Amino acid sequence: MTELEKLVGRLRRFSKVRDWEQFHTPKNLAMALAGEVGELLAELQWLTPEESSKIMEDPESAARLESEVADVMIYLTRLADALKIDLLKAAHAKLDESERRYPVEAYRGSARKAPPLV
Amino acid sequence: MTELEKLVGRLRRFSKVRDWEQFHTPKNLAMALAGEVGELLAELQWLTPEESSKIMEDPESAARLESEVADVMIYLTRLADALKIDLLKAAHAKLDESERRYPVEAYRGSARKAPPLV
Amino acid sequence: MTELEKLVGRLRRFSKVRDWEQFHTPKNLAMALAGEVGELLAELQWLTPEESSKIMEDPESAARLESEVADVMIYLTRLADALKIDLLKAAHAKLDESERRYPVEAYRGSARKAPPLV
Amino acid sequence: MTELEKLVGRLRRFSKVRDWEQFHTPKNLAMALAGEVGELLAELQWLTPEESSKIMEDPESAARLESEVADVMIYLTRLADALKIDLLKAAHAKLDESERRYPVEAYRGSARKAPPLV
Repeated sequence: MTELEKLVGRLRRFSKVRDWEQFHTPKNLAMALAGEVGELLAELQWLTPEESSKIMEDPESAARLESEVADVMIYLTRLADALKIDLLKAAHAKLDESERRYPVEAYRGSARKAPPLV
Repeated sequence: MTELEKLVGRLRRFSKVRDWEQFHTPKNLAMALAGEVGELLAELQWLTPEESSKIMEDPESAARLESEVADVMIYLTRLADALKIDLLKAAHAKLDESERRYPVEAYRGSARKAPPLV
Repeated sequence: MTELEKLVGRLRRFSKVRDWEQFHTPKNLAMALAGEVGELLAELQWLTPEESSKIMEDPESAARLESEVADVMIYLTRLADALKIDLLKAAHAKLDESERRYPVEAYRGSARKAPPLV
Repeated sequence: MTELEKLVGRLRRFSKVRDWEQFHTPKNLAMALAGEVGELLAELQWLTPEESSKIMEDPESAARLESEVADVMIYLTRLADALKIDLLKAAHAKLDESERRYPVEAYRGSARKAPPLV
């Protein structure tokens, strides 16, 4: 069992004992995921990109960022479980595709030509 | 090395050889993450919650959902790396907190009292 | 001067006297807009679509919804001003296009064929 | 009738003749709104804040931005109508509050102390 599968299992048990599975439809979980991403954006919205790169140097900001990123991870993991998607396998499959679509020589250094990552 | 750490490493190499690290500030990655979550919402927005629970039965919808969920995972993993946050550790820490805040007996079955998960 | 133009003007003055114009780049305002939309989603995420249709019957929920919708409107108005986009003109132009793309007879009652609105 | 009320009316008729009102619950419309905001973010995600301030100088980017901003306005207007919220009145009420909470002298020039706008 991978570490990620352990998190999937913990979220299942957490939801089951509280009888919260009834709320965890893909539609609802996707909304909750988006809500948490909104909170993450709020932490970064007025910073310059350079300031955002140094945000973890401030302990209070770092704690808030870690908490928001964790919330996003929790809902993403729970959503993927609800959809029976293997997050790691799906991510690697998408990167296989990105490696084909964005050959190194053609795309080096350019954000205009390609959406940098996927 | 965990499976998730392997994905982190692959994303680092993918970005480095294309010289795309310059675009991957926390601010930019958080926006890209939100953009991908938006695409995920678009797949589910007109479905009822019940229809959303069955969406993976349709092969075409399933492929699109898997692709969108993968994109979200990729940007979340890359963002967490940029912020030096351990996704799994952060998620478990947040769940420790949720278990304390939402004792089973008090919160069973209720979405009114608590935001179900975190 | 339309009512919307009055809001644009009020936001300009509000920002100027506080010297906050420096933060109001399109990039930052788009993030703030997304953050506010995230808060709006959070109000609706665990409701069924039917419950969401009745949410304004509860005075406390109604006040929160009104506040979140207002925040979204404020950032959208400010963003459009920063981009020199006329919100009403742009919306009508988009609807002209939707009316051509989705002829009434072909699309009546179907959310599968078309993204209902734009 | 204000210009905004005319847009509200046009959206009502557009939806009614296509029998799409059935899809326009607050929950669904909020998701669609978030999806459109995601597309807007995607246009700005790899730009620096400075580049984002000049994006309308490029005609192709300007057309895309105008289209995305229009989509957001359309769904926000439709959502507010579904919730029976007067967008302009709600925005002004929120700004009344912001003017009280953020007195000019105390907040001038600072994004740390206050979320700049609301």
